[in-house]
Amino acid sequence: MTPLEVPAPTIARLALYLRCLRACRREGVRTISSAGIGARTGISSGQIRKDLSYFGEFGRPGIGYAVDALLEHLSAIMGLNRPHTVVLVGAGNLGRALLGYPGFEESGFRIAAVFDNDPAKIGRSTVGRKILDMATLAEANKEIGAEFGMIATPASAAQEVADALVEAGVRGILNFAPAHLTVPETVTARNVDLTREIEVLCYFVGP
Amino acid sequence: MTPLEVPAPTIARLALYLRCLRACRREGVRTISSAGIGARTGISSGQIRKDLSYFGEFGRPGIGYAVDALLEHLSAIMGLNRPHTVVLVGAGNLGRALLGYPGFEESGFRIAAVFDNDPAKIGRSTVGRKILDMATLAEANKEIGAEFGMIATPASAAQEVADALVEAGVRGILNFAPAHLTVPETVTARNVDLTREIEVLCYFVGP
Repeated sequence: MTPLEVPAPTIARLALYLRCLRACRREGVRTISSAGIGARTGISSGQIRKDLSYFGEFGRPGIGYAVDALLEHLSAIMGLNRPHTVVLVGAGNLGRALLGYPGFEESGFRIAAVFDNDPAKIGRSTVGRKILDMATLAEANKEIGAEFGMIATPASAAQEVADALVEAGVRGILNFAPAHLTVPETVTARNVDLTREIEVLCYFVGP
Repeated sequence: MTPLEVPAPTIARLALYLRCLRACRREGVRTISSAGIGARTGISSGQIRKDLSYFGEFGRPGIGYAVDALLEHLSAIMGLNRPHTVVLVGAGNLGRALLGYPGFEESGFRIAAVFDNDPAKIGRSTVGRKILDMATLAEANKEIGAEFGMIATPASAAQEVADALVEAGVRGILNFAPAHLTVPETVTARNVDLTREIEVLCYFVGP
């Protein structure tokens, strides 16, 4: 089955199952049922079984899933069985928060360098990393070899930054600026819009 | 139709359409077709028509949607036709990024106060706001009256903070800590897991 046939919400939940399985491994849990994963993630066991069925038969009736094996399988499916290198553009508050966010490194995504176009920031250090000149991105990435770029700039700069990241050879862009990006077909862009998250929450909270 | 019958992905897209309609209004665009919304959001016009059909008949064949009217309708559906007050817990890098994120205020979500339990931070100012003692949250929120809470603490503290937010009377929690929260049925919690976003991106980028 090609990636495109698996519904996007399933993929989003796989990431959640991975988190749960990593916690199980840390706690020494060797097998877990779909109900057990459900209790830890808030997702129904029926949905969990359906999601996992896209990728093969993992569980055994009455025993459940072997935590280590399922973790390895899902990691391989997601491409998370090897480390990835990321370049970050934007060294403002959000960029610094991303640099300090521990989850990326734990998942194997290392932010190797941070770029900005503000002369007042270039050459300074933030969260243990030196801020590099945006103008040097393509050249610098020949050395860094990052597959992923993160955009933490104002919306008005996002498309220009995306173009520069594509030019520098990244294949995936995680965009935190509230702007819709146009990228070539060979590159995947994903928007993280924090405002949207609270708006959706507002709907579910109700009047 | 009650909120629960509308698929969650539709609600997430409504927030995106709202963003698009706000941009149209700023640009002086008075009417827009579903294809026009599609070109600005990257969502197919069929999907757009289907999403909007949950809430009534908005468009007119050959003319499209009246931007102002649709904006008002969708805002009301989402509960965004009035301002909302938010308290933030956690004054680290992520908390500061959230305080400085302009989108919340533009959407009517005002972060009225920031709380932390670190004695080294309490009483200091960050991004123009004074950091208050977490121990005073319930008392302070009698005055503030926030309906929403944001959690920007380490995962290990998230449940405890969620309990305190519920105690303080919030009805919606936006959780940025990578931890599954348990909250009473009267409260809605929504997780924003930044690691998950890049993991999902990784899947779609492929090997």
